[in-house]
Amino acid sequence: MNIILIEGSEVVEKKVKLADKRAEHIVEVLKSRPGDTVRVGMISGKKGTGTILDMTNKPPSVFLSLDLCEKAEPIPPIDLLLALPRPIMLKRIFSQAAALGFGSITMINANRVEKSFWEASLLNEVCYRSHLLHGLEQAMDTRLPKIGFFRRFKPFVEDILPDMMQDYSHCLMAHPGESGTLKNVLTGKPERVLLAVGPEGGWVDYEIGRFIEKGFSVFSMGRRILKVDTAVISLHGRVSALLE
Amino acid sequence: MNIILIEGSEVVEKKVKLADKRAEHIVEVLKSRPGDTVRVGMISGKKGTGTILDMTNKPPSVFLSLDLCEKAEPIPPIDLLLALPRPIMLKRIFSQAAALGFGSITMINANRVEKSFWEASLLNEVCYRSHLLHGLEQAMDTRLPKIGFFRRFKPFVEDILPDMMQDYSHCLMAHPGESGTLKNVLTGKPERVLLAVGPEGGWVDYEIGRFIEKGFSVFSMGRRILKVDTAVISLHGRVSALLE
Repeated sequence: MNIILIEGSEVVEKKVKLADKRAEHIVEVLKSRPGDTVRVGMISGKKGTGTILDMTNKPPSVFLSLDLCEKAEPIPPIDLLLALPRPIMLKRIFSQAAALGFGSITMINANRVEKSFWEASLLNEVCYRSHLLHGLEQAMDTRLPKIGFFRRFKPFVEDILPDMMQDYSHCLMAHPGESGTLKNVLTGKPERVLLAVGPEGGWVDYEIGRFIEKGFSVFSMGRRILKVDTAVISLHGRVSALLE
Repeated sequence: MNIILIEGSEVVEKKVKLADKRAEHIVEVLKSRPGDTVRVGMISGKKGTGTILDMTNKPPSVFLSLDLCEKAEPIPPIDLLLALPRPIMLKRIFSQAAALGFGSITMINANRVEKSFWEASLLNEVCYRSHLLHGLEQAMDTRLPKIGFFRRFKPFVEDILPDMMQDYSHCLMAHPGESGTLKNVLTGKPERVLLAVGPEGGWVDYEIGRFIEKGFSVFSMGRRILKVDTAVISLHGRVSALLE
């Protein structure tokens, strides 16, 4: 936890009382004392410092006075379009993607997505939000990626995707194999990038065809087959390196 | 398991008998039958197919005839110099790094490496090898990264590192903060890259100074602080994108 994240609703007159794992972190890991400051951020808002006005060690509770004058980080220039992975993998992806910085993460169906994945409790905001926050706490960011779920592939591609694509200079699709490299497709002056990552086992040809028809460019990271979570991080790195 | 990996010592007259998790995978996941072929590779050697001559379902056992005519993948152009992480994280790094492809992974000490990490059983080849193999099975590669451990920072930097650095066109050090980007330091015609990644909490100034003195270039991925495993994957992606 490199930053203590606070909900707007918790703040009263620029002060906040914490009595959960955040207080535990301040007491037990940071070993802070009254008068010390800790890094804090408002979820979806500014960052700054919190000064400890009062605290108890057992049970851990901390009363902070907030001074938030740093702007939130800019919206990351990469968005993720992801075939819904199995819940245990999605958990890891949420936290690592929030740490790396994606503007949005949109989960869609695909032929090789198991139906049962759509029943996971993790798809409820109250469940997935904690994993996103975990990533933000690691990265010292306050900006939650926007999350969306579309359970039917064809209506998504036909009715939602074309409008969505207007926001991007580049819509890219990673697919292992013999296509060109990322450098070949991320040409010109890239601004915002939409990155589509397939399910375990990959997209089927029909899906690739529909994405290409809508205007996606396919590229390859080589012949190695990666787990979806590894692929998401590695692709974020690749796109970031070329956007810098 | 996208490829069945076989030790040289297991092969007798181009045939091999499997009765462990590899046989289980062939029987239970692939649901193969006698006469079917599966993708196989010799550890540190060639890849090809194995034809099932005979098998039993319970307990799972498979007798394969091997036809190995594809060369091993080329040695990946990126090597990793890593401040020894905590064992649970190192486990994940071994498997993900082998999947992504590093030529070698050298673990060294640093000020912020906890002493106890050096006592982990994972530092024995018999323990870490299975995690590397797991990554290769995922990526369909046969080439194990070379693994090294150096428990003392100063002797490593003074006596080992200068010779080691001869093998690289670029020796790079990632450090969060205000340095230049990767593009600024990965200039000219990069061939092999040695990438140094610090411990949780980062390198201390003394360590950064010694690396720079020896010829490393420092770059930043921005202000976000990443977990070491996320950083390793993301950095591998960034360097790969610029090497392509």
